[in-house]
Amino acid sequence: MLNNDQKVALTSYFAQFISQPRRDTIEKVLALRTKFVTVILEDIFQSQNGSAVIRTCECMGLHQIHIIENKSYYDLNTKVLKGANKWMNLTKYSAKGQNNTELCFKQLREAGYKIFATDPNADGISIDEVPTDQRLAILLGNELSGTSEYALAHADATVKIPMYGFTESLNISVSAAICLHTVMPKIRRSNLHIGFSEEEIQQTRYEWYRKAIRKPDILEREFLSNNQTV
Amino acid sequence: MLNNDQKVALTSYFAQFISQPRRDTIEKVLALRTKFVTVILEDIFQSQNGSAVIRTCECMGLHQIHIIENKSYYDLNTKVLKGANKWMNLTKYSAKGQNNTELCFKQLREAGYKIFATDPNADGISIDEVPTDQRLAILLGNELSGTSEYALAHADATVKIPMYGFTESLNISVSAAICLHTVMPKIRRSNLHIGFSEEEIQQTRYEWYRKAIRKPDILEREFLSNNQTV
Repeated sequence: MLNNDQKVALTSYFAQFISQPRRDTIEKVLALRTKFVTVILEDIFQSQNGSAVIRTCECMGLHQIHIIENKSYYDLNTKVLKGANKWMNLTKYSAKGQNNTELCFKQLREAGYKIFATDPNADGISIDEVPTDQRLAILLGNELSGTSEYALAHADATVKIPMYGFTESLNISVSAAICLHTVMPKIRRSNLHIGFSEEEIQQTRYEWYRKAIRKPDILEREFLSNNQTV
Repeated sequence: MLNNDQKVALTSYFAQFISQPRRDTIEKVLALRTKFVTVILEDIFQSQNGSAVIRTCECMGLHQIHIIENKSYYDLNTKVLKGANKWMNLTKYSAKGQNNTELCFKQLREAGYKIFATDPNADGISIDEVPTDQRLAILLGNELSGTSEYALAHADATVKIPMYGFTESLNISVSAAICLHTVMPKIRRSNLHIGFSEEEIQQTRYEWYRKAIRKPDILEREFLSNNQTV
């Protein structure tokens, strides 16, 4: 396990293997990255759907996705993802014989999140009414059976997207995009500090530099054996 | 060709074959239907993408979609559509050897639309800045090659969705949803009259009643032969 000084030293060392424009991009994205909003995918089984959600989240500057697998195995679709997952933290909840939705909710609440479960049928609040002054997690449920009973009962609120036509539900990735594009601009315009802490920036820069270079394991080992004092 | 009186009489006749709740839904959707905003799909070739866009448009209360086929044949994906296309007007521009984008733009401009072409690379305006006080058409381009040169050069403006991550483009259906959910709430909150005219309501009610019943052709023929004076 590396300590923080080692990571900072390694990050400086890795920098020489990454072009300046690429490092500039990393700094730009790092400065915009946020854990203030997150998305929970509950038993999504169509890889195209889940992958499009992850890609949308990455484009919007989100860093974390929570994937619950109670009955569905979540599969990635690399053509849809366009590498978006490489730059995000995907946390899976897939313990056998347990209510993984409960485990996920517990963890998110401990981290200070309010949980909003999307449900087209619910008498819930409109996505436009979701409070944006606190950490929030938006849950999207299974494509066929919808959001689970547990999630509906235990979320802080159920939310729906206003609908004006005959069709009664939106595609999962479309729902996610609408929800995020409703809350994110408000949050980015606010004075809330939603960015990473200095420690998170250092940690993430280290991780992203590792991902941006070839053979990071070998380079890291070599650097550490040549710099025992770090 | 039926005249307006005949259509109104037929609509009343058809009503008895449609349940009250279904007629109520039709009236509710009719009252919210708009041609004020429309979407142009330019050479979209993945049926899942185009179909998800149509479904999103229907959910948002749009009535018209314009499909340009210069080099791609547009195919519907019924699993994704969930019947949304049944209730919308899809206009195709697929004349051989012609610039169908030009034909589409000409028709939309004659109908009073400003055209905004999405393009992730453009130095265009943000979707948040698109004026919502006039009829507007949002163009989404081909999945691989993007919006055509012609469309970029001849649109009233190019628009982009603000991006905060490494991934540089969004899925087509996600882009459409974000664009529509940016402009539609502003337009619905405004005092603009965006709904159908009384004539359009009558025409559309007649069309939707026909779609809601079985064997409309037979019923229509019978009614007209028994009511020669209408």
